[in-house]
Amino acid sequence: MRISELGEFPLIDRVEQIVAVDRADVVVGIGDDVAVLADRDDELLLATVDSQVENVHFLRERITARQLGRRALAINLSDIAAMGGYAQYALVSLALPADTETAWVEDLYRGLREEADRYGVIVVGGNMARSPTGIFIDVCVLGRVRREHLLLRSGARPGDVVLVTGQLGDAAAGLQIVLRPDLSVAPDDRAFLLERHLTPTPRLPEAAVIAQSRLATAMIDISDGLSSDVGHICERSRAGVRIWADRLPISQATCHMAQVIGQSPWQLALQGGEDYELCFTAPREAAAQLASLVREETGTPVTIVGEILAADDGRWLVLEDGREVPLEAGGWEHF
Amino acid sequence: MRISELGEFPLIDRVEQIVAVDRADVVVGIGDDVAVLADRDDELLLATVDSQVENVHFLRERITARQLGRRALAINLSDIAAMGGYAQYALVSLALPADTETAWVEDLYRGLREEADRYGVIVVGGNMARSPTGIFIDVCVLGRVRREHLLLRSGARPGDVVLVTGQLGDAAAGLQIVLRPDLSVAPDDRAFLLERHLTPTPRLPEAAVIAQSRLATAMIDISDGLSSDVGHICERSRAGVRIWADRLPISQATCHMAQVIGQSPWQLALQGGEDYELCFTAPREAAAQLASLVREETGTPVTIVGEILAADDGRWLVLEDGREVPLEAGGWEHF
Repeated sequence: MRISELGEFPLIDRVEQIVAVDRADVVVGIGDDVAVLADRDDELLLATVDSQVENVHFLRERITARQLGRRALAINLSDIAAMGGYAQYALVSLALPADTETAWVEDLYRGLREEADRYGVIVVGGNMARSPTGIFIDVCVLGRVRREHLLLRSGARPGDVVLVTGQLGDAAAGLQIVLRPDLSVAPDDRAFLLERHLTPTPRLPEAAVIAQSRLATAMIDISDGLSSDVGHICERSRAGVRIWADRLPISQATCHMAQVIGQSPWQLALQGGEDYELCFTAPREAAAQLASLVREETGTPVTIVGEILAADDGRWLVLEDGREVPLEAGGWEHF
Repeated sequence: MRISELGEFPLIDRVEQIVAVDRADVVVGIGDDVAVLADRDDELLLATVDSQVENVHFLRERITARQLGRRALAINLSDIAAMGGYAQYALVSLALPADTETAWVEDLYRGLREEADRYGVIVVGGNMARSPTGIFIDVCVLGRVRREHLLLRSGARPGDVVLVTGQLGDAAAGLQIVLRPDLSVAPDDRAFLLERHLTPTPRLPEAAVIAQSRLATAMIDISDGLSSDVGHICERSRAGVRIWADRLPISQATCHMAQVIGQSPWQLALQGGEDYELCFTAPREAAAQLASLVREETGTPVTIVGEILAADDGRWLVLEDGREVPLEAGGWEHF
């Protein structure tokens, strides 16, 4: 069977069965976006890797090398944020066609440096190899989290509410512009959505506030789309969920774009990936306090978009007209 | 300018200038194969990444997935060994064409697991992405080294001798068989050389003995070829070197292969890469003791193959007839 027939997540499950080892120092092993390693008492080591593949994750003529450098690091920093941790070091592995321009590679590293500097991260190593065709960028980020601040996908409980930072769907709307530059979009909307797609902002400061509050029960970053990523929380927490479409925080620009391409805004918000916002859960009584804490400390809005149910109660989306439909993952699938 | 015109090492120099940061916790940063990070007092954190690219580092029809899994991990373990450290965790990032067979991916992970188990390493995470064409494997390995055991490239001093573990040239001879399976080679030689090329043995136990002896002054693993890798020691140590061709440890099988392809054995030993043996330096008076220590503890032979000179005295190869010629790097160049 080919991996495209099996699908990404079943393949990861199989791989997990082959390499998973039960050892006390591996707090979270293969199967999560981030490995959590207990290599010293007070703080845990975090390690994550994510890639940007030409013509899969980016088109070379639609993103500058500098933007791509920022993006390649940002998506990894977002994974570290989702554990409640802070990032320290990055390693960058490149496979490049022999005819790649030196200036392009230097600009890529300028972007990496720029993003690294924002969050106190240092690019400490990596590798360069030749690629027969196409650019491949793998970034590995190492970080730390205090034991008591660690947030996993597995901690959500029925009765918790589901919260998200920022606005959802902008990256998906921006992707539409990347794929169809001739779409009729107002210049301000175009600039805003392209930036949200090309250079996402990892929510490290927001994650720090959430983790240090010790009010949240589970967290994940939204890379594949809220519907898919809240699904990961449900799987690991053995829970169900209800998301309210009319509460999803959506920018004006994304609403405009939804109109242009004939989709409803909540589809972009729910199933478009790559927003790299945080999705987290907290007991209902703590949610308002937590949301205002994040807003006050970071300026980033936080919105309650759903509630955690018992596993048997399933996963649901409440549409704007009140109808309840099954919450389909429907986000990014790699193969 | 294209990267193929500039060359790999000048490109790495440029990148280093863009991202290098002087911070106390970065003992060795970008520019080395391994980052050395002072994140706690007694032991340093080691992080390295290396890739295997289809049609650059391997041909899919000439290596099994299981062998490739072993190889992809082994080459990273070799880097950790070269610092005098031990390996703990691996992260595996794959980019795979959608039509890749599931069984192939599972076998790759079986190979990774097999190699990991040999050295007490756990595969704790990674990533999977789609590749438009060709397989890309990036493995990141994390390890540790006690401060007093850390061996860098920069510690060699004039008067030191140059030592190597095992035998050199086997991997290059094996590569000849991979590229030209019709070459006339005895079955035993063929099996031996192919294994040395396809599934190199990371010298972790040997490195541990060398590091713990505290007799060695510098170390590197031989991935690009002895001439190139001893050159890295010279650069970082600001030293010269003299290598004696007739002292290079070369297997019978590689001598036979050299004859078949009309090269001298020492060319394979010196310029063929991918042996993943250790090259290290030690004061002349300690060398014999160190060599026999490694032999006794691990069974692996160690040979004195050269001596470190002052930088001004240059880098030389003494041929079998006594003539001295400049030591050309001439090993693996990526672009």
